[in-house]
Amino acid sequence: MRRSPSASRAAVPSAAETAEAIRSGDRRALARAITMIESSRPDHRERAEALLAELLPHTGRSVRIGISGVPGVGKSTFIETFGLHVIGQGHRIAVLAVDPSSQRTGGSILGDKTRMEELTRNPSAFIRPSPSGGTLGGVARRTREAMLACEAAGYDVVVVETVGVGQSETTVADMVDLFMLLLLPGGGDELQGIKKGIVELADLIVVNKADGALVDAARHAVAEYRHALALLRSPSKDWKVPVLTCSAATGTGVPEIWETVGRYRGTLSGSGALDARRAEQARAWMWSEIAETLTDAFRRHPAVRAELPRAEQAVTRAETTPTAAARALLERFLGPRED
Amino acid sequence: MRRSPSASRAAVPSAAETAEAIRSGDRRALARAITMIESSRPDHRERAEALLAELLPHTGRSVRIGISGVPGVGKSTFIETFGLHVIGQGHRIAVLAVDPSSQRTGGSILGDKTRMEELTRNPSAFIRPSPSGGTLGGVARRTREAMLACEAAGYDVVVVETVGVGQSETTVADMVDLFMLLLLPGGGDELQGIKKGIVELADLIVVNKADGALVDAARHAVAEYRHALALLRSPSKDWKVPVLTCSAATGTGVPEIWETVGRYRGTLSGSGALDARRAEQARAWMWSEIAETLTDAFRRHPAVRAELPRAEQAVTRAETTPTAAARALLERFLGPRED
Repeated sequence: MRRSPSASRAAVPSAAETAEAIRSGDRRALARAITMIESSRPDHRERAEALLAELLPHTGRSVRIGISGVPGVGKSTFIETFGLHVIGQGHRIAVLAVDPSSQRTGGSILGDKTRMEELTRNPSAFIRPSPSGGTLGGVARRTREAMLACEAAGYDVVVVETVGVGQSETTVADMVDLFMLLLLPGGGDELQGIKKGIVELADLIVVNKADGALVDAARHAVAEYRHALALLRSPSKDWKVPVLTCSAATGTGVPEIWETVGRYRGTLSGSGALDARRAEQARAWMWSEIAETLTDAFRRHPAVRAELPRAEQAVTRAETTPTAAARALLERFLGPRED
Repeated sequence: MRRSPSASRAAVPSAAETAEAIRSGDRRALARAITMIESSRPDHRERAEALLAELLPHTGRSVRIGISGVPGVGKSTFIETFGLHVIGQGHRIAVLAVDPSSQRTGGSILGDKTRMEELTRNPSAFIRPSPSGGTLGGVARRTREAMLACEAAGYDVVVVETVGVGQSETTVADMVDLFMLLLLPGGGDELQGIKKGIVELADLIVVNKADGALVDAARHAVAEYRHALALLRSPSKDWKVPVLTCSAATGTGVPEIWETVGRYRGTLSGSGALDARRAEQARAWMWSEIAETLTDAFRRHPAVRAELPRAEQAVTRAETTPTAAARALLERFLGPRED
């Protein structure tokens, strides 16, 4: 049954009302809003868009931190310790997750909330597990928009967590101010789970588990990583990527990490690089939405869909050139070439 | 004046005739075909496509090598020495260039043919400078197709050269079997010109100019790069990236590089990884053609073009969300959302 607009208006708070509730610190309103943002139902999408339009003027005033690292590096413990430290400094922290593969990994990311027990209960923290399912693009859009909602709700530190094994690192790096990579002590072996190029995304590298018997190994790893980074990474004029140690279990090193985040943000704000980075991220996000929607429409077009499997097969078997196959498919979608 | 089909047929050799000439080793026919491939004139595009359809069954039997490195690393001298060595082993080599920025860099890439004087004159070599102008995507497509034409002409080694300062490295890595990065002796300093992620694309790293006073520095650099790669790059199960030295000026080390290329190709052919890589490259190429054409059509659409500057400004100023801006623009192109 389709409700009339007036009935719907009676049942559902307006975008302005919801925005007001979120801004006043109503956690349930925020949680419900994120659920709506995550929904793919067209009426939810429409309401989410209206809500975000209301919230937008109140966003952007957080430090956005991406955190990645392979399973076993201690991400949850780190976020718990880091989050409590940041709250102790007078901040409010929201933690979101990007994990398009959550079905496959068994939803380990933020799923085991017991590992963040204290942070979860803290009134200055808001923790939101990954939306389940969907493409990386879809999950990313929802996480970006959830981040805006958290900012409007007054969280001035937003952490976006991702598991260090897939494509999602690039996506997360493209939505945050600072991308932090957590590593284990002990040289290169543990990097086997980290994909090509991830180390190069990092604005800050932290060797975790620098405690007990591993203190020396961690110190050694830091020296090696610093040296390797100096060799293999082109330095930025604004920021030399620091390699720090910490123990999420004991808390050692965590204050220094937070100080480094502050120093990074200060450096980038001062030079105008932060605003430029965020503007470019927003522009790129718009274009990736456009490209994704266009490609979706293309794939769903009946005449394209009918021919696509044959075309891909001919191309991968080198029976036709990719250019010729693309042109033939595009003619079915756009009509014959006009030129 | 538009010529009739029969007049046109009389003036222009058919695709089958041109293909036959190319396959029989007619260098001028090959050069003319590449000029046609590089042309953006619609009738040339059509003829290029017909020609490539004829040539396609005779392609794929070369080893495709990408070579990159910052200006000053000695790429041209290396290609000359390497090419003459490869010819000495009984092969025929074609050298192409990808340089979408050739206007800005003054066309230095392959432009200074005097640096490859001997190779240029060798009947077993075919050297083609970068097509000037155009987007990276356009230049890449033309280079890929020129590569196919060279293969059909019997060149069993195809080198695609790119200057190590831009995005073109990824594009070149995506069209070759092996991506080789040339570095200078002397540690990390010379990497300043190399962009993030380029080192991680390399299947083979060569420290050039290992001669005279620089022999020791080169040996030291090799040890350091090997160590850094082991730390910062996840190893592939098929191939551990070698770091070799050579002197393009004296020829030292060049035979070992060619042997390594052969060993690489043997490893990847044996495991089926080479066919899989090429099939995936072709599939990705088709999709990038599709995405590029769709985005072009979108940008050129009058209703989109009228609104685009305002939309981009609103997004970069955070006055609207990228999602909302994208949806509004897409409605102008695709019509209102159907769901």
